[in-house]
Amino acid sequence: MVELKEDERLDYLLAENMRIIQSPSVFSFSTDAVLLAHFSYLPIQKGKVVDLCSGNGIIPLLLSARTNVHITGVEIQERLFDMAQRSVEYNDRQHQITMKKGDVKEIDQLLHHSHYDVVTCNPPYFNTPPGDKRNVNEHYAIARHEILCTLEDTIQASSYLLKQGGKASFVHRPGRLMDILSLMRKHRLEPKRLRFVYPKPGREANTILIEGIKDGKPDLKILPPLYVYDEQNEYTKEVHDMLYGNHKSDHQT
Amino acid sequence: MVELKEDERLDYLLAENMRIIQSPSVFSFSTDAVLLAHFSYLPIQKGKVVDLCSGNGIIPLLLSARTNVHITGVEIQERLFDMAQRSVEYNDRQHQITMKKGDVKEIDQLLHHSHYDVVTCNPPYFNTPPGDKRNVNEHYAIARHEILCTLEDTIQASSYLLKQGGKASFVHRPGRLMDILSLMRKHRLEPKRLRFVYPKPGREANTILIEGIKDGKPDLKILPPLYVYDEQNEYTKEVHDMLYGNHKSDHQT
Repeated sequence: MVELKEDERLDYLLAENMRIIQSPSVFSFSTDAVLLAHFSYLPIQKGKVVDLCSGNGIIPLLLSARTNVHITGVEIQERLFDMAQRSVEYNDRQHQITMKKGDVKEIDQLLHHSHYDVVTCNPPYFNTPPGDKRNVNEHYAIARHEILCTLEDTIQASSYLLKQGGKASFVHRPGRLMDILSLMRKHRLEPKRLRFVYPKPGREANTILIEGIKDGKPDLKILPPLYVYDEQNEYTKEVHDMLYGNHKSDHQT
Repeated sequence: MVELKEDERLDYLLAENMRIIQSPSVFSFSTDAVLLAHFSYLPIQKGKVVDLCSGNGIIPLLLSARTNVHITGVEIQERLFDMAQRSVEYNDRQHQITMKKGDVKEIDQLLHHSHYDVVTCNPPYFNTPPGDKRNVNEHYAIARHEILCTLEDTIQASSYLLKQGGKASFVHRPGRLMDILSLMRKHRLEPKRLRFVYPKPGREANTILIEGIKDGKPDLKILPPLYVYDEQNEYTKEVHDMLYGNHKSDHQT
């Protein structure tokens, strides 16, 4: 049982056989969160994971389907934190996932430093524009624009949380590639794996997935491209399996 | 007519219907030079182009098949400069291509500043290793390792040569992506187009192609990936056409 508030609905996470509370007026997760959850390295039995800028908890929920380790989600907005909490309970994951309400810029008041094996973060993408251009919905504005935290805040917090050798994964836009690479190095998260996401073959990339290792040595690998749609505008098998699981194709073949 | 020295041979540039002097003991051009020549923006009727670290003149020769503008090649090694000179003459391009023997680090003694529209450079790729690990053949060592010029030297020289709004293109290895991006920005060549080259589908990228604009504004685009071979280990159509031209397929279809 779960209490739904106002215009909330209980959407399916089909591949994981889970459900998540969303609201068209407050927050819905994007494909980017799904891509990041699948890109990130994940310990299976031992270790601790933190997801920053968790929104409605999509990444902790997705990760919990693939690992037994404990996952902490951090979200600053009360309304999203509350949605995430209720989704965790609905899916009976309260022993594995802890949601914390707090500010990435004050991460030292929330969580221990050098304590975690993996940090994931789908941060706000856009430099804060002048007020009048900003998304009029405040919830969306905070989730999308660097209003309450900048890219550097999330990278600095990730580095603070990670053990030496721990891994931080981010999803972002190609226009910020240079910034993300240099900020990661500045904060001791050496970039190691970089994957570009293309909406379909022949188009420019619109998303980057990047993983760094705390105090790792320089050795950046560019992974094969990830296409979301094929030339017929259908999901590619890789993305289809992330969204719907590969059970069907297992049974069919 | 052309004089061939020692173990030199006169290889074909099939797509361009030209020939080029190569020597297995001194220098042979790589696919990277071909990829760069095709990646680079090229004015057709008006403008001036410089190719730095020209080797045996492969890039000036390839470019001359696609444009009427003047191209200057700069090469520091006497032996390669001499091979390039003779190839230019053999192909009757001496009115369009000028080879200069000189040092990229002293580019101000060779060419005018803020005078060129396009600069291309396929620089030595490897940080200079300790002497004993270096390629034993000195010609190859200089062409491959940062012995006589570093990545920063070539970027600085390119910026010196370009007019405002002029374009510089480089080919390099993915491990240097961060360095090349930050050095370009440092020397006022804002990165604008980035393309990753994959040896074949499913593999990691092994080459990057990047173009910057002098004093351009930040807006980096990630182009569709370039695959060299397909899953059957045949050249992809894109690379096949670069190497052999697309005359054949034109006639066949």
